[in-house]
Amino acid sequence: MMHKKHITIIGAGLVGSLLAAYLQQRGYQVDVYERRPDLRKASIRAGKSINLALSDRGWRALAQVGIEEQLRQLVIPMPGRMIHDKQGQLNFQPYGKTGQAINSVSRGGLNALLMDRAEELGARFHFEHKCTGVDFERTIAYLHHQDVSLEIHAELIFGADGAYSAVRQAMQKTDRYNYSQQYIPHGYKELSFPPTAKGDFALEKHALHIWPRKDFMLIALPNLDKSFTVTLFLPFEGEKSFANLNTPEAVETFFTREFPDARPLMPHLTDEFFENPTGSLVTIRSYPWVVGNTCLIGDAAHAIVPFYGQGMICGFEDCYVLNKLLDEHNDNWREVLPLFQQLRKPDADAIADLALDNFVEMRDKVADEQFLLRKKIEARLHELYPDQWIPLYSMVTFNPDIRYSEARKIGKQQDKIMQEVMAALQPGDDWQSLDFAAIVGRLQD
Amino acid sequence: MMHKKHITIIGAGLVGSLLAAYLQQRGYQVDVYERRPDLRKASIRAGKSINLALSDRGWRALAQVGIEEQLRQLVIPMPGRMIHDKQGQLNFQPYGKTGQAINSVSRGGLNALLMDRAEELGARFHFEHKCTGVDFERTIAYLHHQDVSLEIHAELIFGADGAYSAVRQAMQKTDRYNYSQQYIPHGYKELSFPPTAKGDFALEKHALHIWPRKDFMLIALPNLDKSFTVTLFLPFEGEKSFANLNTPEAVETFFTREFPDARPLMPHLTDEFFENPTGSLVTIRSYPWVVGNTCLIGDAAHAIVPFYGQGMICGFEDCYVLNKLLDEHNDNWREVLPLFQQLRKPDADAIADLALDNFVEMRDKVADEQFLLRKKIEARLHELYPDQWIPLYSMVTFNPDIRYSEARKIGKQQDKIMQEVMAALQPGDDWQSLDFAAIVGRLQD
Repeated sequence: MMHKKHITIIGAGLVGSLLAAYLQQRGYQVDVYERRPDLRKASIRAGKSINLALSDRGWRALAQVGIEEQLRQLVIPMPGRMIHDKQGQLNFQPYGKTGQAINSVSRGGLNALLMDRAEELGARFHFEHKCTGVDFERTIAYLHHQDVSLEIHAELIFGADGAYSAVRQAMQKTDRYNYSQQYIPHGYKELSFPPTAKGDFALEKHALHIWPRKDFMLIALPNLDKSFTVTLFLPFEGEKSFANLNTPEAVETFFTREFPDARPLMPHLTDEFFENPTGSLVTIRSYPWVVGNTCLIGDAAHAIVPFYGQGMICGFEDCYVLNKLLDEHNDNWREVLPLFQQLRKPDADAIADLALDNFVEMRDKVADEQFLLRKKIEARLHELYPDQWIPLYSMVTFNPDIRYSEARKIGKQQDKIMQEVMAALQPGDDWQSLDFAAIVGRLQD
Repeated sequence: MMHKKHITIIGAGLVGSLLAAYLQQRGYQVDVYERRPDLRKASIRAGKSINLALSDRGWRALAQVGIEEQLRQLVIPMPGRMIHDKQGQLNFQPYGKTGQAINSVSRGGLNALLMDRAEELGARFHFEHKCTGVDFERTIAYLHHQDVSLEIHAELIFGADGAYSAVRQAMQKTDRYNYSQQYIPHGYKELSFPPTAKGDFALEKHALHIWPRKDFMLIALPNLDKSFTVTLFLPFEGEKSFANLNTPEAVETFFTREFPDARPLMPHLTDEFFENPTGSLVTIRSYPWVVGNTCLIGDAAHAIVPFYGQGMICGFEDCYVLNKLLDEHNDNWREVLPLFQQLRKPDADAIADLALDNFVEMRDKVADEQFLLRKKIEARLHELYPDQWIPLYSMVTFNPDIRYSEARKIGKQQDKIMQEVMAALQPGDDWQSLDFAAIVGRLQD
């Protein structure tokens, strides 16, 4: 029987916990070191993205560790976007075909489930252990625990410690390290719609609600307790900005004017607004991910903005791909780690770009007539030619077999074609009589 | 009379010294703190890009501080590239029109001249002062000098301390700072051709010599002492790489095979090869450049790869643009600093991209028949329509009034047109009978 390594994972977040489950399942002994206390015992800090959207790519990765059934209990399907205009008018836009949906899930609940499963499989979690550095030559993780310094000698270290990864910061000090951090001009603030007086959801629960206002937007996702988590995305500076929402009156006026149907659903608006932190939104790119026997994974390697609902999922897919490579290469890590980073880097770059693009779509285009018409035409194309024309959103969200990088490439072709189709449409033309076969044919050129 | 500020500059390199001269000329009192000893007293460390190419944009910036005449004595004009093929055959390609040239200049000589001039104007230089941090709120520079820690309280601080800027590293710790460092897979090694036994240049002195070999190249620039500074650009890893040039025999074989006409000109090849360090090549982008009353300038804000010969010049142009803004805004720094970064950022980004592109041109395309034909056609277009069609290289190198960002944009249009022109040319077609007016006309669309 071959020797199975001891593996150290830094970070017991979503990706670190899933990775622990995967590796433990393969027969490794996994120790996970987490900076924070055990979130299953403490209550999670409010105001920091407490729910997330889970879709097919994420399900596929999670299904491999046998938690699919339990997970079904934790999610609320959202088959489409509910757009709220400034008059409070609603417009529902399906994300995909009938039966397809993204799913609202609590970050804390999912993380707890993943930790429970990893522990069940034999992984050991060590909380309040803060990573302070890594010796890549000797594969040693340096940790602090209750004012004591520890050296963990590992055979393999994974840095699953998120966007501000200590493991990556150590890598950044190595020679010729490629690194980029780019912030968008927008920040975010988490708010909420509590359940109604009758104890019901304040809005339709099977939808991701969006109040698109061109340069900013409000969104709301349903929670199991019948509340909604609400997030305002707004520039830090400028006329309509966090900088100018600096008094309760300013906040009150802004919400009443911009989101008139949402305002009455927020009894604690100003309290929440000033109690919750304003988060920033960063894209982090780094390379290599592997130095010696240490490997970055998830946000530590490639943090992205949240607008495609793929940040967590991309990290889960990292675990899925790594596991598949281990299958294919008989757990030969010397082969697998370089392949892992080569294979995943273009996909991580692609979803980073797509997530930035999708912000413009969410906050601006979804309210645009031409955009909606284009969506209809693309939905018809998909209906008529289900395998040849898959809209970009569907490729990313509902088709895990299409790599992010491939989806992005095909999406660009589709975009070029659709721009021409839309430009050629005359007012009064019936879009239903378009030559759909010809449109699809151009894609295959 | 208005109050003139005391200004602190970190870094007495090329850009810091020129900036000191500019600001002193405007009546400010400038103190410059430099990590290294005075290079006018010490000998500059070998093996670290000891000569540079100076062209029109640089001259324009230098002319403003009154050193043009002295500078003429320090440079050797290079009106074109001399391409050396593997058989030792030569092919001279002019860079521009008759009378246009780039100029080989010694980094040390130019830096000394700039420091002398700044001192003459009243600037004070403090050597062996290492910047360890900046307090942006209070505009304090922290320095180390001979094991003593100093705090310099300034009204304005400029970080002109190069690609690995300490001032920028302090900025990187501020909230939402955008930063990127990207290394190319190639490194460089500095070598030399000493003068011949008869005391003459070993090769034609009025040329930048290139031995293009697709994935790597050797270049040589003339020095006043009749030697050439020679630089090998080669991947770090792979078949033909620095990793594999690890014995004198390997170096010997490689040079003899790849650069047969250059090898005999290098009597100290293997000594130099193993004594000189292997440098890496990085592109650094950062933003903002201004935090409080502290501003980055030159490589500290935007380090680029050396393949367009514009790294130093872009920094000089920063000084020129800043000076112009101070003229236009009556030295109102609160207006000038934000304008400076807004104006220069797109130009710095453009030249960073162009410099990366030009590496492919230098090491590969200059040896290609089609490329040479295209150059001929573009030169003719320029001759016939001197103001309408200026080849990209000429815009960047010989036309300081065209911003880098503009040059890049026009260059892309030209590239698209020329690709189509080249594709339409049939074998046997005489390029001289092309419809040049029609080609230029397309640019104006």
